[in-house]
Amino acid sequence: MSEQPRSSSGSTLAPASNHGWRARWFHIIFGHGDAPGRLFDLVLMVAILSSILVAVLDTVEDLHARMGHLFLMLEWVFTIAFTVEYVARLLVVSQPRRYAFSFYGIVDLVAVLPTYLTLLAAGGPHLMVVRALRILRVFRVLKLTRYVGEADMLWATFLRARPKIFVFFSTILTLVLIFGALMYLIEGPENGYTSIPRSMYWAVVTMTTVGFGDITPHTALGQMVTSVIMLLGYSIIAVPTGIFAAELATGIRQARQQQACAQCQLQGHQADARYCRGCGASLHADEYEG
Amino acid sequence: MSEQPRSSSGSTLAPASNHGWRARWFHIIFGHGDAPGRLFDLVLMVAILSSILVAVLDTVEDLHARMGHLFLMLEWVFTIAFTVEYVARLLVVSQPRRYAFSFYGIVDLVAVLPTYLTLLAAGGPHLMVVRALRILRVFRVLKLTRYVGEADMLWATFLRARPKIFVFFSTILTLVLIFGALMYLIEGPENGYTSIPRSMYWAVVTMTTVGFGDITPHTALGQMVTSVIMLLGYSIIAVPTGIFAAELATGIRQARQQQACAQCQLQGHQADARYCRGCGASLHADEYEG
Amino acid sequence: MSEQPRSSSGSTLAPASNHGWRARWFHIIFGHGDAPGRLFDLVLMVAILSSILVAVLDTVEDLHARMGHLFLMLEWVFTIAFTVEYVARLLVVSQPRRYAFSFYGIVDLVAVLPTYLTLLAAGGPHLMVVRALRILRVFRVLKLTRYVGEADMLWATFLRARPKIFVFFSTILTLVLIFGALMYLIEGPENGYTSIPRSMYWAVVTMTTVGFGDITPHTALGQMVTSVIMLLGYSIIAVPTGIFAAELATGIRQARQQQACAQCQLQGHQADARYCRGCGASLHADEYEG
Amino acid sequence: MSEQPRSSSGSTLAPASNHGWRARWFHIIFGHGDAPGRLFDLVLMVAILSSILVAVLDTVEDLHARMGHLFLMLEWVFTIAFTVEYVARLLVVSQPRRYAFSFYGIVDLVAVLPTYLTLLAAGGPHLMVVRALRILRVFRVLKLTRYVGEADMLWATFLRARPKIFVFFSTILTLVLIFGALMYLIEGPENGYTSIPRSMYWAVVTMTTVGFGDITPHTALGQMVTSVIMLLGYSIIAVPTGIFAAELATGIRQARQQQACAQCQLQGHQADARYCRGCGASLHADEYEG
Repeated sequence: MSEQPRSSSGSTLAPASNHGWRARWFHIIFGHGDAPGRLFDLVLMVAILSSILVAVLDTVEDLHARMGHLFLMLEWVFTIAFTVEYVARLLVVSQPRRYAFSFYGIVDLVAVLPTYLTLLAAGGPHLMVVRALRILRVFRVLKLTRYVGEADMLWATFLRARPKIFVFFSTILTLVLIFGALMYLIEGPENGYTSIPRSMYWAVVTMTTVGFGDITPHTALGQMVTSVIMLLGYSIIAVPTGIFAAELATGIRQARQQQACAQCQLQGHQADARYCRGCGASLHADEYEG
Repeated sequence: MSEQPRSSSGSTLAPASNHGWRARWFHIIFGHGDAPGRLFDLVLMVAILSSILVAVLDTVEDLHARMGHLFLMLEWVFTIAFTVEYVARLLVVSQPRRYAFSFYGIVDLVAVLPTYLTLLAAGGPHLMVVRALRILRVFRVLKLTRYVGEADMLWATFLRARPKIFVFFSTILTLVLIFGALMYLIEGPENGYTSIPRSMYWAVVTMTTVGFGDITPHTALGQMVTSVIMLLGYSIIAVPTGIFAAELATGIRQARQQQACAQCQLQGHQADARYCRGCGASLHADEYEG
Repeated sequence: MSEQPRSSSGSTLAPASNHGWRARWFHIIFGHGDAPGRLFDLVLMVAILSSILVAVLDTVEDLHARMGHLFLMLEWVFTIAFTVEYVARLLVVSQPRRYAFSFYGIVDLVAVLPTYLTLLAAGGPHLMVVRALRILRVFRVLKLTRYVGEADMLWATFLRARPKIFVFFSTILTLVLIFGALMYLIEGPENGYTSIPRSMYWAVVTMTTVGFGDITPHTALGQMVTSVIMLLGYSIIAVPTGIFAAELATGIRQARQQQACAQCQLQGHQADARYCRGCGASLHADEYEG
Repeated sequence: MSEQPRSSSGSTLAPASNHGWRARWFHIIFGHGDAPGRLFDLVLMVAILSSILVAVLDTVEDLHARMGHLFLMLEWVFTIAFTVEYVARLLVVSQPRRYAFSFYGIVDLVAVLPTYLTLLAAGGPHLMVVRALRILRVFRVLKLTRYVGEADMLWATFLRARPKIFVFFSTILTLVLIFGALMYLIEGPENGYTSIPRSMYWAVVTMTTVGFGDITPHTALGQMVTSVIMLLGYSIIAVPTGIFAAELATGIRQARQQQACAQCQLQGHQADARYCRGCGASLHADEYEG
């Protein structure tokens, strides 16, 4: 296959050679188009999700006591499998260094490294390090981001709305700072507002309408100011929502008008169309993502 | 009546015969178009709501002590009534098997089964089973979904936006996993984050801005990370809202332009129009839903 | 003035006579167009807000102890003033009975009645009745709804979206019922879910993302189900927001295209325009609202 | 430079003279267009953020004990720097009085005043005043609002939607008043609803879906009314969001169609365009803001 569409992360990877086992494995490992490629994807996804499940359940004391040995064994099975996958990716790609330093290359390395490092740290005195390494395993979830194709349009909308989102967050943070300082002054340490940083944490809890209730205003004035903060937080959420809805509506309309079928060039497909209504060709080209 | 419009659940049901009592009762039980059909619907709705009310109030200890016998009697009245309704539906429809295995057929069966099963379980030792059977009665509310016609457009919008919603939930769950693991590491079991699953439960509580306050961060670093989680959860809600608003706006515009009057074929009716502005015919056809 | 535009509440009120003091006072009391009418409105608004403030502050124990006598005196001043206003409205209007039974007529009566009734109830043994009568005074706030002209478009949007909103609330209540029953079964009375009604109250607290934290799940299964409820509540809010945004966008576009200047018939004014861009005439006609 | 575009705060400032050091410094201090102007902006921003950080961290007892002296020294460095900046702004502008009474002039003065006032208050008995003066320093964050150019469109949208927002807040406050009074009546002081103001504070906490949990309903009737309040608050948020989304969508569409390149007058640029697609000229003119 000569055409190499750019992946969503911007990098274009090519097979090490166009023929032989490396070309075939390249299509199986990096491609999502044919049956073997899809089977590889499926097996990988199941392995990733299972390895995360093991890492998560291993922190439950009960389960660790009963099935800790099984979890450890499974963890090594997954680690070795992901190591084989990582090495295979390095082997079949034409520019291994480029893959290794791409986003997915780093994610694939970080997915296996912690388990090997626990061997080194295990003998040492730093229990915290072992614990941190164990928890790093859940970051394997990032390996899955490869498979989320639809994210591109949402990401483009986010980028287009970026300046407005920046204004929104600046406003939120300014309000958090000012109201945090104000409440620190009004309520004071005796009511739990022991410092401005803690008071700002409370302001975020309140503005975002989370409202844990671990710190609450006790004075009448504090409750009045809190009411203002809550109403602000409650209604200011309309701003990013409105921005996003407006930008996305524009994006959807444009996408519907612009997308052309790769085969017959027909335009004006519906947003959820998977095949060209004119010639029946797939509207989703076979994609190779790093 | 020869035309049998497809119901919203996709199944088309026909009367067992086109004449005689079975045809007449078919229109009363399955149709919503004429007076007897509407009366049947009304009586059924009242019975469903009443039976749910009885099931709900029966769990209040005070009321159970005072009116338990009345509740039990009413429960049997409703069960027998729904059993008669279920048998009648089976009798008047041309393909009883098809109805029995349709969504509404199963719902109608499940609405009466638990009460009969309590007779079997009552003598047994499993109090939990009896309690579960009693609570299953509230699922009778699903019998009401027959009458929610407007849901179709919202459902269509949901289906159209499905790939974007999938991306949204994947993002949320990834963030919940990563932040849950992170907070487990930062705060640790001594602050209530006893395992990653529990920490993930807390992350959902926080990201969705529910904020029960049963678990809260105590360290300064934990409070900083929590602030980030809350701001993410607070603003990320803009995404599905924007998606839904944008898709729905498109849907409303299309629906307004496309719907044609069944009698005079006039198009371009307003979204809330019930009758054709050209000839006055009803824009809602008589629908038979299983 | 011969033209009597329909008020937002649908009732058209006419002065008792077209000349003399009753006609003049009709325009002062019911009209918002000229200087005396606006002065009357302003004085009335200040009186309403002040009387509410007195009723509210009177429930604060400290303030009641210190200024109870002043509050009582002020309360009688406001009551007499509103009584005079009510009688005056009855006198200047052509159909007093019609006004008396209109929404605003009832609100105006209810605004003064409680204070007189406290005189009757004061001697009696029912302290609760006196307290209720005192609190009823805050309903005077409804007298202010007269002055919220912009509400019409929002109300029209609400009416247009009504069938969808009904579907939305039906869905919410069905989910609340099912999840309430489920959590009652899973967590049980020992964890605070003492009955299905209480469990449903908790489900509303959770689905609406309020999250008081007075009842929280303690079992692992309960926390998993709760996570699902929270994610549902968090994302389902997108539905009414999307509906409203989509309907409102349509409404704004239509309103901009359709509104014509009463003087020169020019169309296509901006949504916030107060005067015709062609001839400078006011786009808001003098309105008489009951 | 002869053209002086109006700043977003509506005031146009001119240099004291068109040549010499005052003109040059005017462009450095007030302009954002050339390299020295941008460097000045950057240094100022860093100084503002650092001074806020010092003010915030100084309230943390631990840090104050360990680094109080350093914080005090830094505070004086920043104060002197901002004083020099303020004096410089007064010197280079043609109408110092006009700058001094503009929004930014007052903000710049308030940014330095508290530190000098602490010298006066330090000897006095009023510890509260010293604390208040120290906390006032965080208001320096308002100096940063100069640099948020994108806010203009959001502000314009807010202004256009103002009448609808007013209606929204009136509705919210009316509901808060009525439900606050109702819950005070239903639950009463024995359940924490000690007065209507406190009950209204709780109603705001509940309607905005914050839900601290410091006050919660205990009676069955109170929990039912609370469920209504929560569902209202949960769904009413759709109103401002819908308003904002609808107005913003209109604003974005208009802005895209209307903006013309200052050099070649080409219209129809994309919302995020920084340079004219026809001639490459910057679409953002060099702006002088107070």
